[in-house]
Amino acid sequence: MEKFEVHILGCGSALPTTRHHATSQVIDLRDKLYMIDCGESAQSQYRKAGLSFARLGHIFISHLHGDHCFGLMGLISTFGLLGRTATLHIHAFPELETLMRPWLDYFCAGMTYEVEFHPFAHGCTDIIYEDRSVSVQAFPLSHRVPCSGFVFQEKPTAAHIRRDMIECFEIPFSQINRIKNGEDYVTPDGKVIPNSRLTTPADTPRKYVYCSDTRFNPNNVQYTRNADLLFHEATFAEEHAARAEQTCHSTARQAAEMAQRSAAKRLLIGHYSARYTDERILLDEARQVFEQTLLAEEGKCYKL
Amino acid sequence: MEKFEVHILGCGSALPTTRHHATSQVIDLRDKLYMIDCGESAQSQYRKAGLSFARLGHIFISHLHGDHCFGLMGLISTFGLLGRTATLHIHAFPELETLMRPWLDYFCAGMTYEVEFHPFAHGCTDIIYEDRSVSVQAFPLSHRVPCSGFVFQEKPTAAHIRRDMIECFEIPFSQINRIKNGEDYVTPDGKVIPNSRLTTPADTPRKYVYCSDTRFNPNNVQYTRNADLLFHEATFAEEHAARAEQTCHSTARQAAEMAQRSAAKRLLIGHYSARYTDERILLDEARQVFEQTLLAEEGKCYKL
Repeated sequence: MEKFEVHILGCGSALPTTRHHATSQVIDLRDKLYMIDCGESAQSQYRKAGLSFARLGHIFISHLHGDHCFGLMGLISTFGLLGRTATLHIHAFPELETLMRPWLDYFCAGMTYEVEFHPFAHGCTDIIYEDRSVSVQAFPLSHRVPCSGFVFQEKPTAAHIRRDMIECFEIPFSQINRIKNGEDYVTPDGKVIPNSRLTTPADTPRKYVYCSDTRFNPNNVQYTRNADLLFHEATFAEEHAARAEQTCHSTARQAAEMAQRSAAKRLLIGHYSARYTDERILLDEARQVFEQTLLAEEGKCYKL
Repeated sequence: MEKFEVHILGCGSALPTTRHHATSQVIDLRDKLYMIDCGESAQSQYRKAGLSFARLGHIFISHLHGDHCFGLMGLISTFGLLGRTATLHIHAFPELETLMRPWLDYFCAGMTYEVEFHPFAHGCTDIIYEDRSVSVQAFPLSHRVPCSGFVFQEKPTAAHIRRDMIECFEIPFSQINRIKNGEDYVTPDGKVIPNSRLTTPADTPRKYVYCSDTRFNPNNVQYTRNADLLFHEATFAEEHAARAEQTCHSTARQAAEMAQRSAAKRLLIGHYSARYTDERILLDEARQVFEQTLLAEEGKCYKL
């Protein structure tokens, strides 16, 4: 299977602690990198994770709370110092460009590359980005301010060619991609080998869904359904369910309910309140509802 | 002696590394805290150093390069989340308020405390702040953009009262502060004990000088003279002296020359270029000129 993994750079909530940084993740899909949210210190965490700066082209910002975007200026400046030339694309609500443009003009004048904003509207459910590997759909979450989740849907891959058939028919290298994409093979003496004999089916395209800050909202199952990996915020334990409701956040149990209703393969929880010195309470509560739950940990990578 | 120490939160230069954070320091003077510069991740480093957020009242920003101020928004937001009520004072060139005000209005609306800016002009040599413990004088450095150094001059302390004299004359507690401040003591039976018999001289007021990003500029000895501790940037080793000149930075040797010309007691160097994986080359070069040189290290505290 092609690479599709999620690196956690920060999984704390608004109040950073000595144990957790503000929110940021990097998706590595077929060796292209996509960042989701960019809290303070994201660039340091990125470096520590050993990820390539050059392979990052697109950043998706879920909402305009500081713990999800205060790391952008530092990251952008660093790319400038490193002599980046490729345009960096930022997908966010339009207010972010309004806020950042004067800072970019002041602090990043004369940079070797461009920062291009791709605004999308509050409540947007469009595919806001796609390339040949992935499409990214936005969908509205239920937070105190406009906030967006993201569905990373892998594009279908080609079928797998059977090695034994390559050897059996001495298929030349030049024909491999054509066969992977569905063509039959015609041998030098004119015999047609049907594609079905030469290939095994392509892998099922995978789906990663990112639910940033949100209260429990089962309507969003239409977007989270069948996720191979569902990230869902789990700021609070059940004992603080009232606080979760009040601040438009979720409990670990609610995150697990979303995973269950979505028939997700696995659930990854994060955005932990600073009040918990041990997040196993969140893991335990989630697993009572949805066994395949994982606790996000900084510096760790989760494969789909 | 009263407490006067410098905590290094970050001593890297513009490009953060896995070993160094962007510039920030905290001065602890008689239990009041003053921050100088606030690069990204300053709040995390502050927390790791175990310093009290409540005791920080004033932040001094040397210049408007991102590695000296991108940590402000995160720090200010965190103080808001923690329910701070005391005004936070920021001393900086006027452009900083212009840049930050829209961000504060957007991200920090409804905070429980005020952020007050105290602008000072480029080239300013005034005392820009004083309280009963310290005065802070700005002075111009020589960088690519307007940049200011800061002289933290301790205010004179009271004389030390001699314990043996307290016991000898059974001096009541109520009289101690008057004697410390120079008064004689009159015994219950009317005998005058002269102050000189009761006290030993006050400690000599100490001086900390912070030389942020700058090329070598011996004219500034008028400000750095007789520093008990001189912080001076030392971005480069001698082999990169041309690069130092070109980017308006200093070599470690130049920092040491400033310390020598200033008759400083000790020199603390920092703001290391990311190219050095071992800063001992900087220490060695500085010590050839000025033996009492220390390498700034993150998380360490330097006493005056």
